[in-house]
Amino acid sequence: MKLYEFTQAPNPRRVRIFLAEKGVEVESVQVDIVGGENLADEFKAINPRGVLPTLVLDDGTVIDESPAIYRYFELTHPEPPLMGTDAASQAYIASVERHMEFDGIQAIGDVFRNSNPAFATRRKTGQSGDASIEGLVEQGRVGVERFFDSLNARLADSEYVAGDTFTIADITALCAVDFAKWIRMPLGDGREHANRWHASVSARPSASA
Amino acid sequence: MKLYEFTQAPNPRRVRIFLAEKGVEVESVQVDIVGGENLADEFKAINPRGVLPTLVLDDGTVIDESPAIYRYFELTHPEPPLMGTDAASQAYIASVERHMEFDGIQAIGDVFRNSNPAFATRRKTGQSGDASIEGLVEQGRVGVERFFDSLNARLADSEYVAGDTFTIADITALCAVDFAKWIRMPLGDGREHANRWHASVSARPSASA
Repeated sequence: MKLYEFTQAPNPRRVRIFLAEKGVEVESVQVDIVGGENLADEFKAINPRGVLPTLVLDDGTVIDESPAIYRYFELTHPEPPLMGTDAASQAYIASVERHMEFDGIQAIGDVFRNSNPAFATRRKTGQSGDASIEGLVEQGRVGVERFFDSLNARLADSEYVAGDTFTIADITALCAVDFAKWIRMPLGDGREHANRWHASVSARPSASA
Repeated sequence: MKLYEFTQAPNPRRVRIFLAEKGVEVESVQVDIVGGENLADEFKAINPRGVLPTLVLDDGTVIDESPAIYRYFELTHPEPPLMGTDAASQAYIASVERHMEFDGIQAIGDVFRNSNPAFATRRKTGQSGDASIEGLVEQGRVGVERFFDSLNARLADSEYVAGDTFTIADITALCAVDFAKWIRMPLGDGREHANRWHASVSARPSASA
């Protein structure tokens, strides 16, 4: 089994933290997104979508997209559960994890990719030829502020993002908040609940994975 | 339990087809997205994210995002399995289903929302105030053609989108292809494998759910 990933990028970090929480070690291969290695023939032969992280199983099955990779390791290494237990908790955690991705990582990625000259013709992850779009930067910034406010409000009511236990929703949220530093948008001192949570999850050994 | 949905929209259809394949009936409430009911106070009090479909369980738990709702009903009604069985098939199907959403529905949605005057200030689902961005229309159209080509290539090798059985990847792909009709982008006669598949899945009773 091999995990193709890139240490600096937010989505591979989701999987690295997940694996660290499970205590699972997987052979990994670095693919330099900034340098465009994910779009080169060598990696496209492995995954034509050109995205990271990509997990290749021993039988050759290719699995990309972080939540799908989460699913694989949740089933092969059930303890500790990071995706819920019964139907309601599994579905609720899956839902909240999507909020962290769509409202958080995507908004931050819109700002990052559309304002960074290195991605001038790579607006979409895994694709070349899509020119950056200036209007997405401003709307992205508004979206990031919304995301931070919503995260703070959510954490006023619970210790972790999706309830009383640490789950994939925390992992994805942590990767989002830290990714936002790249676009110089910190959580800010005013969001006390989100700050309390961020200090707590950042202190877990998995955060440095 | 109540499912908030809108008959005309592609994402609620994903869940309707899923429920029809499972033979599950759930009380549903229509929320008119075109008319903006999903952004009105009444619905925002139920789900502040303003997105459909939204499932509310009897204990008040709110679950939005189609794959999370798929998960709930897959666990409460396991037969027939639509999300795989073992770890590898569950992860692979989750991965491919994401391709259908990200590469298909999102690209089509970019064209639809950014070119339709009804959504001039609602570029993002569930949000008001985000103005449409013209550049997303052209890039979206390129993305839709890529998606159709990739779908056709995939279906040259297998009966269904994620292998030999009908799964959530077929449901999401079907909703994408039919959503593309709204932006006048048909599959076209040349994509024979995708056409064969589309005729087959459209003939299932669930397609009219």
